[in-house]
Amino acid sequence: MIRVTVLYPNKPGMRFDLAYYVEKHCPMVMELLGEACKGFGVDQGIAGVMPAGEPAYRVVAHFLFDTLEDFQNSFGPNAAAIAADIPNYTDLQPIIQVGEVRA
Amino acid sequence: MIRVTVLYPNKPGMRFDLAYYVEKHCPMVMELLGEACKGFGVDQGIAGVMPAGEPAYRVVAHFLFDTLEDFQNSFGPNAAAIAADIPNYTDLQPIIQVGEVRA
Repeated sequence: MIRVTVLYPNKPGMRFDLAYYVEKHCPMVMELLGEACKGFGVDQGIAGVMPAGEPAYRVVAHFLFDTLEDFQNSFGPNAAAIAADIPNYTDLQPIIQVGEVRA
Repeated sequence: MIRVTVLYPNKPGMRFDLAYYVEKHCPMVMELLGEACKGFGVDQGIAGVMPAGEPAYRVVAHFLFDTLEDFQNSFGPNAAAIAADIPNYTDLQPIIQVGEVRA
């Protein structure tokens, strides 16, 4: 299984509309990706443990796929549409990476 | 629900024993945390999407708890024992943060 992790850095003073992200953006992404995407999750960073204090990331989201090809084939054609929605909820630039689920 | 995310930066030349982490470290953590920890997951970073290229994080792990208190009360007394095991599988220093699951 493939987990795509999306990390929004916790930069002071930047805008992030969590309600829009959860209620509008992620469902839009799920609809665009279709059956290839098996689910998503969204965490709101509340505290850092290491280092202690503020969380490094304001929001951590993930999207699940059965295979790397499922991700590539569904995300590729929709990447521009997905990216075009980002300014609707944040000024932050996310880090996005693909991981293989090992446990 | 609370998700604790653990991010090991992808620094070239550094050691990370994924088999030890999945088969020894995480089960040890689960045993120390007891019933407070509802599960864990481990992803091996395989590619960056934004930025493209190498993944920002070599390993992304997460641990789930029902409440912040469950995490604090189970992790606090075991933090030293857990940290003491890190050199057994890596030289990397993880970023660890607590998030509240919003979706």
